[in-house]
Amino acid sequence: MEITPIAKIYTHYPTKFGIPRQSRLVENTAKIVFEKEYRNEDALRGIEDFSHLWLIWEFTEAKQEKWSPTVRPPRLGGNTRMGVFATRSPFRPNSLALSCVKLIKKEKTQNEGTVLYVSGADILDGTPIYDIKPYLPFTDSVPDAKGGFAQSVEGNSLKVEFLCDISFLSEEELRALTQLLENDPRPHYHTDEEKLYSFEYSHYNIKFTCDNKTLYVQSVGKV
Amino acid sequence: MEITPIAKIYTHYPTKFGIPRQSRLVENTAKIVFEKEYRNEDALRGIEDFSHLWLIWEFTEAKQEKWSPTVRPPRLGGNTRMGVFATRSPFRPNSLALSCVKLIKKEKTQNEGTVLYVSGADILDGTPIYDIKPYLPFTDSVPDAKGGFAQSVEGNSLKVEFLCDISFLSEEELRALTQLLENDPRPHYHTDEEKLYSFEYSHYNIKFTCDNKTLYVQSVGKV
Repeated sequence: MEITPIAKIYTHYPTKFGIPRQSRLVENTAKIVFEKEYRNEDALRGIEDFSHLWLIWEFTEAKQEKWSPTVRPPRLGGNTRMGVFATRSPFRPNSLALSCVKLIKKEKTQNEGTVLYVSGADILDGTPIYDIKPYLPFTDSVPDAKGGFAQSVEGNSLKVEFLCDISFLSEEELRALTQLLENDPRPHYHTDEEKLYSFEYSHYNIKFTCDNKTLYVQSVGKV
Repeated sequence: MEITPIAKIYTHYPTKFGIPRQSRLVENTAKIVFEKEYRNEDALRGIEDFSHLWLIWEFTEAKQEKWSPTVRPPRLGGNTRMGVFATRSPFRPNSLALSCVKLIKKEKTQNEGTVLYVSGADILDGTPIYDIKPYLPFTDSVPDAKGGFAQSVEGNSLKVEFLCDISFLSEEELRALTQLLENDPRPHYHTDEEKLYSFEYSHYNIKFTCDNKTLYVQSVGKV
């Protein structure tokens, strides 16, 4: 089956390292711009009545020649193998991803048609979107679903200390960056307290160290 | 982007008419059989730790030559046009569908490899599945999401009266069929009390009439 991108999403995550591990963990605004063929205001009629949306998108950075039946989820330390269909790993037979995001607003623009602003995306900047569906709580929300191994690690949040100037960050940037760091962006098999990690968030380069309880931001510089 | 079916799902819904309008409305067991290339027990390792799964599948019966920006949801009486991305309509640019189902069990079989039994599928018998993902409540469940027009019609259930012999139905068949009928399988712009509706459920042909409060099952016959 051939599928075609209907839109692209523009987020604050220019590289793979530093993207939140799931949607809705970090409140960060992203913009969905429709491809010219699908840039039609009518296609969004009524969407503002929904608070949340599903995005079906493509794991563009997880291409592999051959599918592998098992993957090693970072949440399990990176050493335990799980069946690919028991995980949300990007390395799967069809590179389809699913994210729930909050709809912030629909906006008519001069050059990009009607765009959507959403919050909570865990998606690389510029990623193609294949479908947008409204979130229907009566069928999509299962609060008491059993979450397997992913459940037990939910609460693992770090304390974040900024050891550098961050006065130039906006309130939203600071909040989102803090949430991102609290959720521990390190690969989970990394535990080197000396190591200086570095990643890009929005147009900043972030450097930090981490002692497994506290994450120390060493510098926030413009890219 | 080219995507390939990983499995097929076998349900009790041989035709379009009579399929529940969303997943999880009807407790009905369906079987997922993997395609030969993806028939690998390891790919399902750990899946039994999750109570619910996402299925991404193809609306095979909703092919259209050209995409239409608006659709007329049956839930709104079939006359109001909504933007396609504000609905779960099968008529969308990419015919991708999303359903949450309950995982009943994983079973090793002699001829079909390891299969999954699930409940709550709203899917035509024999439909190709493109991805299976675990349901993660901490990111997927949003109980207080605002559900737009779909919310207000949730409670519209009919009383169901059987006017014919149903002694040959199993307990599960009777329960599922009743749930299916309570949810009103008629196209929503149909209100003819005289009309005899007919659809196939499992290997039965069901005939009923309906006065908008009560649905009268007139016959349940073997196909």
